[in-house]
Amino acid sequence: MQPYELSLADAAHEMRERRLSPVELVDSVLDRIDRTEPHLGAYATVTAADARRAALAAERDIAAGRDLGPLQGIPMGLKDLIDAAGLPTAAGSRARADRRAGTDSTVAARLGAAGAVLVGKTHTHEFAYGLITPQTRNAWHQERVAGGSSGGSAVAVAAGSALFALGTDTGGSIRVPAALNGVVGLKPTYGLVPRHGVTSLSWSLDHVGPLTRTVEDAALVLTALAGHDHRDPASLSAPAVDYRPAPVDDLAGLRVGVPGTYYFERVDPEVESAVRRAVARLEDLGAELVDVETPMTRYVLATQWGLMVPEATAYHERTLRSTPELYGPDVRVLLEAGELLSAGDYLRAQRARTLMRRAWLDLYDTVDVVAAPTVPTTAAVVGGSTVTWPDGTVEDVSESYVRLSAPANVTGMPSLSLPVGRDAAGLPIGMQLMGPPLSEARLLRVGHAYERTEPAPGLAPVA
Amino acid sequence: MQPYELSLADAAHEMRERRLSPVELVDSVLDRIDRTEPHLGAYATVTAADARRAALAAERDIAAGRDLGPLQGIPMGLKDLIDAAGLPTAAGSRARADRRAGTDSTVAARLGAAGAVLVGKTHTHEFAYGLITPQTRNAWHQERVAGGSSGGSAVAVAAGSALFALGTDTGGSIRVPAALNGVVGLKPTYGLVPRHGVTSLSWSLDHVGPLTRTVEDAALVLTALAGHDHRDPASLSAPAVDYRPAPVDDLAGLRVGVPGTYYFERVDPEVESAVRRAVARLEDLGAELVDVETPMTRYVLATQWGLMVPEATAYHERTLRSTPELYGPDVRVLLEAGELLSAGDYLRAQRARTLMRRAWLDLYDTVDVVAAPTVPTTAAVVGGSTVTWPDGTVEDVSESYVRLSAPANVTGMPSLSLPVGRDAAGLPIGMQLMGPPLSEARLLRVGHAYERTEPAPGLAPVA
Repeated sequence: MQPYELSLADAAHEMRERRLSPVELVDSVLDRIDRTEPHLGAYATVTAADARRAALAAERDIAAGRDLGPLQGIPMGLKDLIDAAGLPTAAGSRARADRRAGTDSTVAARLGAAGAVLVGKTHTHEFAYGLITPQTRNAWHQERVAGGSSGGSAVAVAAGSALFALGTDTGGSIRVPAALNGVVGLKPTYGLVPRHGVTSLSWSLDHVGPLTRTVEDAALVLTALAGHDHRDPASLSAPAVDYRPAPVDDLAGLRVGVPGTYYFERVDPEVESAVRRAVARLEDLGAELVDVETPMTRYVLATQWGLMVPEATAYHERTLRSTPELYGPDVRVLLEAGELLSAGDYLRAQRARTLMRRAWLDLYDTVDVVAAPTVPTTAAVVGGSTVTWPDGTVEDVSESYVRLSAPANVTGMPSLSLPVGRDAAGLPIGMQLMGPPLSEARLLRVGHAYERTEPAPGLAPVA
Repeated sequence: MQPYELSLADAAHEMRERRLSPVELVDSVLDRIDRTEPHLGAYATVTAADARRAALAAERDIAAGRDLGPLQGIPMGLKDLIDAAGLPTAAGSRARADRRAGTDSTVAARLGAAGAVLVGKTHTHEFAYGLITPQTRNAWHQERVAGGSSGGSAVAVAAGSALFALGTDTGGSIRVPAALNGVVGLKPTYGLVPRHGVTSLSWSLDHVGPLTRTVEDAALVLTALAGHDHRDPASLSAPAVDYRPAPVDDLAGLRVGVPGTYYFERVDPEVESAVRRAVARLEDLGAELVDVETPMTRYVLATQWGLMVPEATAYHERTLRSTPELYGPDVRVLLEAGELLSAGDYLRAQRARTLMRRAWLDLYDTVDVVAAPTVPTTAAVVGGSTVTWPDGTVEDVSESYVRLSAPANVTGMPSLSLPVGRDAAGLPIGMQLMGPPLSEARLLRVGHAYERTEPAPGLAPVA
């Protein structure tokens, strides 16, 4: 087994036992990047020289007994919306061609302080306004899409070209590529992870979170990321928590809601059966399954778009007026469309969110978590723009990708996507575990109990 | 002294000592209403029969030893935006002509549970969209405006036709009429007092709070009103507090911010000198005066309007389309104008609010309270629509009334207005004490220390 194949937790353990050095680990990941990038295109920028210097420093720190915890010496990628001092934050856009970040974002600073080693900035759709990440290919099948907008991060983690990565999630952009590439993706509670220094798509829906190979790894990264920052006006002042889940084998007493509709409507049969198998596994572990109806689902997309479009336009207002030609045509038309929305449209979306949030809170009076598919299909063929369902309806691929993940953005409640098998073509399938505000520890515990019975699929066999 | 002349605290004390019965007190207030209403027009509805029944019940409860606390048997008015079961909530509008409330609002229910006796619903400008309350006359001078939109509540309390009343405050609508009628008005922290069952003007700026004759009385009413209610999505889950201030004679250690600009610009000289005299009194009591600059003042009105206008329009959307002719022309034009605002306009106002809130929080790192005029003038002549300032600028009366009070609505931070004297014409002058979120106990303590040295002006000599 090569060092790049290790999970974060295993790599940390090996380094602590002095059987692996940070330099060996980073070199192994950088070699892997060299071999996989021609096929996958996960990275916008690779910072090999800086990463080697940081690994050397980590090696010296460890030798000197300076223990920074489990992230020390771990190679990571940051989605190219997240500022890292001295590097471009290109956000996949020509509008950002000349920009370099002066200082670290809060999350980059926190990961740096925990000793993680940045190996590069990962690709995203322009300003994250899309669910495909067109520059990048699926880690498991290069004729398939990566999913987006954190596609570069998901593919890097799936292919072994980072041990973990950060993404952002406005309508599903962490969980969708995580599901399509067979890795774990966590969208935390709104406000738990600060967004200072992270390019905004839609500030009332934006979240930052980890993509990892295991649920345990997601917990380790979240522990370093969470905590108040006054520079993000939505930042919560929740107390610090160690999210690392104890190795639980028993979910007795846990009520798992299984949606009767919406989350299993217009869902590929292979996806449905993989998720139902995983849900049955939770029942084997002692959980009680409860049929639930998820509320107000017919308003999800209208609410998501009604909030996102005008907020995105407001964020880009000046650049859009001064240099509209720097935006790609798909993003430019969305941003310009946002200028046509009325205050009433936006207010209706805000009010629908309030009602939806309340209805989901009521649902969580009756169950502890809700389990459902993350995405209704596996990864689409590159260039394919629609899905045709057995009932004859034709759906835009991006809309199908966002449909099941967006409710957790609208409500701001946490959702953890984890791999639960693959389809006949070998493409990964994801299940999401959703819970009420600040239930991350619970979601991670359930996900970890599952992955102890059914280990993650391992690395994609790229090259 | 007649019973209606007593403060709430004194009346409660008299009743507890069995020197006054609830029936005597309510009858005294109802008589006073009969005498004052022809001159003042404070009430939209008087509920004499129900009030007598409630007073009788309170008398029996007291005789039986059932002690509900200081509000038991106290006659009160509710602004006619606040639902009380079985009564109209006319909101000053023909659009509400046929509406009766099926159940109590949260605040009506809480006051009822505390034993307060409703004597009537008080007048407001149509849907509170204005700062005058045209149906009502100033308690001190009938050729002067009452101020609004809780004008009926302020005048009833000032004239002795209620011992306290509730108002709502979206841009100053509790504090402005309180100041102009020589009573105390408290706009609490956003979310502290639930708004379930209260007609909305602008839900992100609306507050419910008490109008009383003394600061101590405001504390007693707030204690009954505050506390979480899940039916108001903005309701805070702050712990229950007994706000009644201890009789403090010393403000040593208190830092009082005195604004150098804005709050003393375009302010009538008599208002300015009364407020400066009151501030000097706080210094006599041991407070330290600190010069401060209040932040982002040039954006206050644009932000206030940018939030209020589209929210008001959204609230009235359906009725405005179906029966526009039921609205008065001034309110109708404001509501229709709201349909023209873009989502971008509203978002700019929301973002300005976030920045303003943050800047005020920073200010409260340096001082404990800020003391300033509530309104820049005393009550305008009825029908007068503008103020001409010595520098030649002409200001709309309503704009001048809202200018100094609106910052606390935009930031959601508490503000207590209390009487600090009268001008040469005998018209009352108000000072507001502002503080950071949930600093109500502090504001009430400072206000109560002031009123112990300088008692409130007493009842207006109406009839």
